[in-house]
Amino acid sequence: MSTGRLYGVGTGPGDPELLTLKAARVLGAVPVVAHFAKRGNASNARAALGGLPLRADAVELPLLYPVTTEIDRHDPCYKRKIADFYEASAAEIARHLEAGRDVAVLSEGDPFLYGSYMHLHLRLAPRFATEVIPGITSMSGAWSMAGAPIAQGDDVLAVLPGTLPEEELARRLAGVDAAVILKVGRNLPRIRRAIEAAGCMDRALYVERATRADGGVEPLAARDDRPAPYFSLVLVPGWR
Amino acid sequence: MSTGRLYGVGTGPGDPELLTLKAARVLGAVPVVAHFAKRGNASNARAALGGLPLRADAVELPLLYPVTTEIDRHDPCYKRKIADFYEASAAEIARHLEAGRDVAVLSEGDPFLYGSYMHLHLRLAPRFATEVIPGITSMSGAWSMAGAPIAQGDDVLAVLPGTLPEEELARRLAGVDAAVILKVGRNLPRIRRAIEAAGCMDRALYVERATRADGGVEPLAARDDRPAPYFSLVLVPGWR
Ligand SMILES: C[S@@+](CC[C@H](N)C(=O)[O-])C[C@H]1O[C@@H](n2cnc3c(N)ncnc32)[C@H](O)[C@@H]1O
Ligand SMILES: C[S@@+](CC[C@H](N)C(=O)[O-])C[C@H]1O[C@@H](n2cnc3c(N)ncnc32)[C@H](O)[C@@H]1O
Repeated sequence: MSTGRLYGVGTGPGDPELLTLKAARVLGAVPVVAHFAKRGNASNARAALGGLPLRADAVELPLLYPVTTEIDRHDPCYKRKIADFYEASAAEIARHLEAGRDVAVLSEGDPFLYGSYMHLHLRLAPRFATEVIPGITSMSGAWSMAGAPIAQGDDVLAVLPGTLPEEELARRLAGVDAAVILKVGRNLPRIRRAIEAAGCMDRALYVERATRADGGVEPLAARDDRPAPYFSLVLVPGWR
Repeated sequence: MSTGRLYGVGTGPGDPELLTLKAARVLGAVPVVAHFAKRGNASNARAALGGLPLRADAVELPLLYPVTTEIDRHDPCYKRKIADFYEASAAEIARHLEAGRDVAVLSEGDPFLYGSYMHLHLRLAPRFATEVIPGITSMSGAWSMAGAPIAQGDDVLAVLPGTLPEEELARRLAGVDAAVILKVGRNLPRIRRAIEAAGCMDRALYVERATRADGGVEPLAARDDRPAPYFSLVLVPGWR
């Protein structure tokens, strides 16, 4: 008996119509569909499938993150917990693959752009046939929804995690033509100060739940410091 | 009679299965499908549709670039020619929209990431209802095909046009965790020297025609200086 194939499947930013034809085909064919979720929450990547038909006998495998928001991510205890979680998840998927069952792991946006799937890929790709199906990134979804061309010609575009220190964010923003800041959430006030310091508040856009029915865009300057949801990012369009 | 709707449609990097469900739906419904092409060449974005069914009575509107490779892009004559070309293309599309016909403009990868569609959007979006359908970018296609996770955690990712001067490329590469260099083509030798200078040759990958049947990946260090095709890029994966 041969082993199963691992698929890392990008589900796009939320609108189920932004799945690729390939993702739809593979998800309709595999016997096991795994997805990351916070305990007690529905998986966002799973929600992005909308009404997409899976196999009637498909097994869904939720991979539940250990509680993470209460512990600082630099805490060694957090790091150990999360590493253990990825080990255990990889082992669970490996059992299906060893039994000859293909497994698709859902990943919001594109799997290889800051995606949790990367941690499973690292552990499983050396042992099993693996294929990554790219997805529409949250940034593409956001700038499309905002009607904001992001980069043209010789523009340099930076993709920055909003978890960076304020001074580093400001310094990097000042040195580029265009930027996207991911992982906004509770980092919003700091990001706003960095954008202000870098002198790009006049063109910065705040985008929440891009491509979803409840999504929205507004100038960052108009957004107050109410906590931002996990699914939010900031765009600094280039091409002026 | 109401005017038509303009769609900027990302076709993804080449594999027709990487179209989104939304792109496939819209392209099957619009009466006019426009695509950029070099005179004498088939449109690459058009080729990325594969056998996708359009409306039986759909009109295809090729937008043929004036000859561009013989003139330097900083030459004022080139700049005028290309601006005239975008004006004329926008006017041609506007005639369809004014007559009440929806028009889809194909764009390789994602329309708002260094795409020619942006020039039409700028001219037409103020006058007509417009929707941009994001596409899988060439960089997502490339890192997925290469099996190379690009960024994780606090990684900073730079997207750089290979048209930048060598020293600038090297300086920008040295300051980030991960990078993608687009527009490789004839710039390959210069890009290689910049990567060498920035000390990231050990992990740089050269990717040609990502996601296509004739595509390939190799370490940049193993790639000689034969001219690279237009559809090539360099990845410097982060997350070490
Ligand atoms: C861990 S990263 C994963 C990125 C994802 N792999 C991608 O390709 O976009 C999570 C961050 O992506 C951004 N994000 C994801 N989906 C989003 C959406 N629909 N709208 C706005 N931001 C989103 C948020 O900034 C969030 O903090
Ligand atoms: C004008 S830019 C357009 C980028 C496109 N809008 C996107 O989202 O990827 C053209 C550059 O994209 C890159 N490119 C496009 N398709 C590619 C492919 N299939 N494989 C490798 N590189 C590609 C090349 O570097 C090329 O010079």
